[in-house]
Amino acid sequence: MSKEINSADLLSLCRRRGFIWPSFELYGGVAGMFDYGPLGSNMRNNIVEIWRDIYRGREGFIEIDSETVNPREVFKASGHVDEFADLITYCEECESAFRADHLVKEFFNNPDVLSQKELDEAFVKFGVKCPECGGKLGPVEEFNLMFKTSIGPGSSRVGYLRPETAQGIFVNYPNLYRYNREKLPLGVIQTGRGYRNEIAPRQGMIRMREFNMMEVELFVDPEDKGWVRFPDIENDPITLVPNTGTEALTMTVGEAVKNGIIANKVLAYFVYTTQQLLTRLGIDPKRLRFRQHLRDEMAHYAMDCWDAEVLLSYGWIEVTGVADRGCWDLSRHAEFSGTELTHFKKFDEPKEMEIDKIKAKHKALGPKFKERAKAIAEMMETRTPMDIKEGKLYLNLDGEEIILDDGFFEVVRVREKVSGERVVPHVIEPSHGLDRIFYSVLEHSFEHDEKEDYTVLKLLPEVAPIKVGIFPLMEKDGLDTFAMDIYRKVHSPRMEAYYDGSGTIGKRYARMDEVGTPWCITVDYESVEGPNKNTVTIRDRDTTAQKRIPVDSVPDVLRSMLYGRPFDDL
Amino acid sequence: MSKEINSADLLSLCRRRGFIWPSFELYGGVAGMFDYGPLGSNMRNNIVEIWRDIYRGREGFIEIDSETVNPREVFKASGHVDEFADLITYCEECESAFRADHLVKEFFNNPDVLSQKELDEAFVKFGVKCPECGGKLGPVEEFNLMFKTSIGPGSSRVGYLRPETAQGIFVNYPNLYRYNREKLPLGVIQTGRGYRNEIAPRQGMIRMREFNMMEVELFVDPEDKGWVRFPDIENDPITLVPNTGTEALTMTVGEAVKNGIIANKVLAYFVYTTQQLLTRLGIDPKRLRFRQHLRDEMAHYAMDCWDAEVLLSYGWIEVTGVADRGCWDLSRHAEFSGTELTHFKKFDEPKEMEIDKIKAKHKALGPKFKERAKAIAEMMETRTPMDIKEGKLYLNLDGEEIILDDGFFEVVRVREKVSGERVVPHVIEPSHGLDRIFYSVLEHSFEHDEKEDYTVLKLLPEVAPIKVGIFPLMEKDGLDTFAMDIYRKVHSPRMEAYYDGSGTIGKRYARMDEVGTPWCITVDYESVEGPNKNTVTIRDRDTTAQKRIPVDSVPDVLRSMLYGRPFDDL
Repeated sequence: MSKEINSADLLSLCRRRGFIWPSFELYGGVAGMFDYGPLGSNMRNNIVEIWRDIYRGREGFIEIDSETVNPREVFKASGHVDEFADLITYCEECESAFRADHLVKEFFNNPDVLSQKELDEAFVKFGVKCPECGGKLGPVEEFNLMFKTSIGPGSSRVGYLRPETAQGIFVNYPNLYRYNREKLPLGVIQTGRGYRNEIAPRQGMIRMREFNMMEVELFVDPEDKGWVRFPDIENDPITLVPNTGTEALTMTVGEAVKNGIIANKVLAYFVYTTQQLLTRLGIDPKRLRFRQHLRDEMAHYAMDCWDAEVLLSYGWIEVTGVADRGCWDLSRHAEFSGTELTHFKKFDEPKEMEIDKIKAKHKALGPKFKERAKAIAEMMETRTPMDIKEGKLYLNLDGEEIILDDGFFEVVRVREKVSGERVVPHVIEPSHGLDRIFYSVLEHSFEHDEKEDYTVLKLLPEVAPIKVGIFPLMEKDGLDTFAMDIYRKVHSPRMEAYYDGSGTIGKRYARMDEVGTPWCITVDYESVEGPNKNTVTIRDRDTTAQKRIPVDSVPDVLRSMLYGRPFDDL
Repeated sequence: MSKEINSADLLSLCRRRGFIWPSFELYGGVAGMFDYGPLGSNMRNNIVEIWRDIYRGREGFIEIDSETVNPREVFKASGHVDEFADLITYCEECESAFRADHLVKEFFNNPDVLSQKELDEAFVKFGVKCPECGGKLGPVEEFNLMFKTSIGPGSSRVGYLRPETAQGIFVNYPNLYRYNREKLPLGVIQTGRGYRNEIAPRQGMIRMREFNMMEVELFVDPEDKGWVRFPDIENDPITLVPNTGTEALTMTVGEAVKNGIIANKVLAYFVYTTQQLLTRLGIDPKRLRFRQHLRDEMAHYAMDCWDAEVLLSYGWIEVTGVADRGCWDLSRHAEFSGTELTHFKKFDEPKEMEIDKIKAKHKALGPKFKERAKAIAEMMETRTPMDIKEGKLYLNLDGEEIILDDGFFEVVRVREKVSGERVVPHVIEPSHGLDRIFYSVLEHSFEHDEKEDYTVLKLLPEVAPIKVGIFPLMEKDGLDTFAMDIYRKVHSPRMEAYYDGSGTIGKRYARMDEVGTPWCITVDYESVEGPNKNTVTIRDRDTTAQKRIPVDSVPDVLRSMLYGRPFDDL
């Protein structure tokens, strides 16, 4: 069968058979929005379950679910209010909007790095006009890509739809740290919607305005970037494209760390975990690579970042980013919220150290604060010099804010026995684009025989939306009730079965092959009488081999094959 | 133990132990928003899985997942743009916003039925002032409760965050009907976010601005409101409060239909299914009732509607609505989208009927449309008189819109053999408030012994966020590695285990009891040596009984108890 993939053919199959549907078609549709139909919804849930199995099951991480509408403060701290933007231009005549870099892509190799000014100049230099009406283009502006809304009535609070699920984890750090009994590492996962108000979405499911993510935020001790299960995988191979060149190199995970290609063991472990996840989902390892961000592509705070890229009909497409984000996220939220977000790291034994402390000037406090002076002095001395903002200390005493300048305190250096220190955890983040992964799995499973006009989706059993088709040879003579009995025994949300009694058996196999159903069971006349009574045939999608098995064994046979028993073993 | 519930105590437990956290606490919080912590997220997922097991498993319904941001057209058709509002008033001095009916609740039994004018008058009559500052209240206005946003840049499309997941199913009717091979009944489920921009959220998780739903839309033949599995349950009892009185009556489901209390069998079946779901989740049947909407409470299109109400510390609270919505939803979307949303119902045998048909006036078409006249005539005759809008017929020929007035066609009555007719399906809708159900399950499971200050959450095993605690008696002498081995064998997202080695065993039991963990396994010195080597103790939360079982049997024992095997049976 041909492996040439035409994304239009695949999208047409997805639509026709109920994997995905363009949203709001009744009302003319909205670009960049898709609904998951019954098969897509099942398959997507299966992908999420496998991701959970790895992160919650094997790694013991915890899962949370936070809100999609967030107040402005969150994204001010995260940087999205100021930075999450594309450059836009509007036609001065027809008022159409365009991503400015898209209009000059024939003149530059990398138009998305151009500044506002460079784009304005390029429009003049190359005589770029509105592609819709030929009109003059207006000045290039920033367009923030967050969907904006208001929370509550009146002079209400500005809110945004989250552009990523990660912030919901960061802002819950104090709760999560307490839940984890104040220990590191602390691994947290979240799946859910993200939103990006694209100017001009294109490429089907690759750029969606409303998308689905699976994000992992692992908080680690900045001085301990190993991982307990690293030795299990250090000799396994991985294909990397380091940012020192453009070539893909295959090496072991251990070598990648030893040679300084991946920054540290914990990051390398989760780059490799991403490879495990993607291949377990059915992405072809030969069409998967990990590309290190170029220096100018990496966020300034990122210590190292690797994109999982999958070769699709659109080219190499990023489906997952695995980054060591350092202390950036927690530091920013600490700064903007005025709350310390740290880990208390106990020393093996108390150390004598020189530390800077705040010391109250009792003589100044007394006259000013009278009977409250003592309480204020005590509160001051629980603070550290890090809490001094522009020479002032802000306290909250019984609901009243008290601002103290350095007339009321001094910073003194003392030698003390200390039992530990506060550190800002570093974050390792494997962030998965669920829709892109979903689509990649479909492309890598899609096989179309042009000559026979026959399509098979070679989805792995764990991922397939329907696990088994159940067919009576004819819908009469009791074959239908016999088949329906099997359906009722087998079918559940985790063993989705599909009863089909119409058309030739060949057509019914073809319908199941086209949606990736790994097995089909047929009830024939031998099932109800004669020496083979109470047996049925089971057919394997990929080999089209068939075997007869006792009807009573069907549930166990299916369950064992779902967990990896080969068909040949039946 | 006391069953007196203080919702503040329960919410405090939820917060402390990681069931739910008020959102964005770092930034002062946002009213009506909660995040699900690790335990809450697990438990909520368990609830969704049980709902799926009933609807996708037993009933064979299909599941979809549609977008949360919808263009305005969808909610114009659904009525939400015009009707989904609360009455609001702003203080003319301090500008605070209030739900107008909340300000007069001491003067009226049912203030939420008052009109804008009646509220304005009541403010004057009773001298109601701003509760914040005593200032004068402005005129009562409508405040639409949908979160509003823009899709895309520029003079962009107005979008709203969906107030319910249901519309995503209705607007996909053509896709769903095709998926179901043009057959009824067609049952579709969806779980996901809904949004309601409350003026003043209160009552904890009862009124949330961002909430979670589990909705079911069942499309049925309007002339067949039976259900295939109705006979299985018709003799089962149900507690109903019909709108003819205020009293709760217990009767069988069959009697409720026979006596005309519930409108039809399919509605009654899904009212009863809701009872099955809620009690399987752990809601106390004695604190559950189904209340029929009063006539003035029922939407004008609803043919019958029953609310599942649960007795909580807040009073009787609606957690689910089960309605027969008639043809309302599909008719509205058909009208607003100009697309027929029907089911073709085949007669048992073709009938001779008088029908109205469109007949082309070839003499008028020829001169005007020349060589295209024949194609236009053929296309016209595929339409029905229902397609005529204000005397005109709109056709689309090769992308060109052709508008024909009645000079080009006539409507004629003919006798014809017809094989069937088009009907608009009716919709049966069990719509579940997931967060309210989640909270109700917690309240009905919560038992607090004041004297001992001891809390047990009696969560059913299927629902419990952690299924088993695994403890080494001491974290030494190999007991810890022995216990950790059990943890690794047992723990998965569907059999969540919690390893705990710190504190006394009593404290560790208490920690697990407080979060509803049904079983605990302890590894002691007998587990590693002596006659009981390779056995462990297992403790039952509700009886605190303990038994010794072989360590190898642990995974099977847990799995079988999760599926209902009693502890006594071990």
